Amino acid sequence: MARQLLELCGTDPARRFSPYCWRSRMALAHKGLDAEVVPWRFTENASLAALGGKSVPILVDGDATLTDSWDIALHLDQYYPDAPALFQGPPETYRFITAWTDTMLSAGVARLIVSDIPSLLNDAGRAYFTQSREKRFAMSLDQVTAGREARLPEFRASLAPLRRVLTMQAFLGGAAPDYADYTVFGTFMWARVVSPLRLLDADDAVEAWRGRMLDLYGGLARAVPAMET
Amino acid sequence: MARQLLELCGTDPARRFSPYCWRSRMALAHKGLDAEVVPWRFTENASLAALGGKSVPILVDGDATLTDSWDIALHLDQYYPDAPALFQGPPETYRFITAWTDTMLSAGVARLIVSDIPSLLNDAGRAYFTQSREKRFAMSLDQVTAGREARLPEFRASLAPLRRVLTMQAFLGGAAPDYADYTVFGTFMWARVVSPLRLLDADDAVEAWRGRMLDLYGGLARAVPAMET
Repeated sequence: MARQLLELCGTDPARRFSPYCWRSRMALAHKGLDAEVVPWRFTENASLAALGGKSVPILVDGDATLTDSWDIALHLDQYYPDAPALFQGPPETYRFITAWTDTMLSAGVARLIVSDIPSLLNDAGRAYFTQSREKRFAMSLDQVTAGREARLPEFRASLAPLRRVLTMQAFLGGAAPDYADYTVFGTFMWARVVSPLRLLDADDAVEAWRGRMLDLYGGLARAVPAMET
Repeated sequence: MARQLLELCGTDPARRFSPYCWRSRMALAHKGLDAEVVPWRFTENASLAALGGKSVPILVDGDATLTDSWDIALHLDQYYPDAPALFQGPPETYRFITAWTDTMLSAGVARLIVSDIPSLLNDAGRAYFTQSREKRFAMSLDQVTAGREARLPEFRASLAPLRRVLTMQAFLGGAAPDYADYTVFGTFMWARVVSPLRLLDADDAVEAWRGRMLDLYGGLARAVPAMET
């Protein structure tokens, strides 16, 4: 059986925008592994349930089915130990940057770009997404992102830890990227695919790193259609 | 020559409060190493210069002199490879949590406790500290910490990534502490030694972790005189 990765997409199956799916797609590339893109759209829950999952990404790799990006990364290092490691030390030591990405970075990005997402979705997806996110934020999505240009300096200031590391070394993993890079980069890919808003200044060390990430593996991430101009 | 660690202290030499010195003191204990405390006070720059340094901690370990907490940690893993590793993977992968601690955590703690520090210092230290920090903050230290109780909820919210990891595992390093734990803990020791302000809720996972850190190595950190009650 061919290796398959279920990835969230918009009406256009090429427009893959889930931060978590990007972690897994980049992790596969890091290991030198290919996987068929299986486009998945919001509300298509039957196909998840058939695989025993509740969300994407889901990786089907031979007899193994992994239903979470973290488990996918662990699986890849365990099953493909001869390829470069995603985790250069115990995976537990990568929990902090994952938690920072989930609780701080992605939350900050969401407040800048969430209203750009509905127009990329089909009718069912748009209804689901808008309703569930408006409930989460307790306001309309346009209200969430209102005045976003004025809030960019605050967002950029929140990237101080990232910026400090990336002025010292090329990647979070050191001289080469590792799973920490893919974790953080997933959130920037999410923004790039769905939103025309420029999150970063051109001379920001984080922006230079983002460029290096977009170039990895033959420009894998750069090739995906994006709203970023 | 006995191993020596220069550590910042108040008028009372037992009151050691530098977050960076605590990183090194805990790192030594992690390696099972003792080191004489050499008390150092603000403005005593001649003793630093004599060792080729500009700030504390400074570790003198036989022929080696290390003038920075990061270099001390690297030295300890390199010179004592048989003792448990401080860095469980490449040190580069610990740069992010170090940068987060320095740019976000310590900055947040400073805005809550910095005005408590001058009263612990001798005349020369108090003059130096007050003047240099008031210049940095561009306001009086009392103004910096004004209304601090009301700002505690915001500070506690900023610990979300720490909290998430510490609900999943006992230490940032996993089942046992590593240099990531000592890095973050140093900032909490700074607060504990100088300020009566309770930074954390009693039922916070971060507070439970802090208790475990205080208990390490026979209660090494807990034994130091503290303003925390």
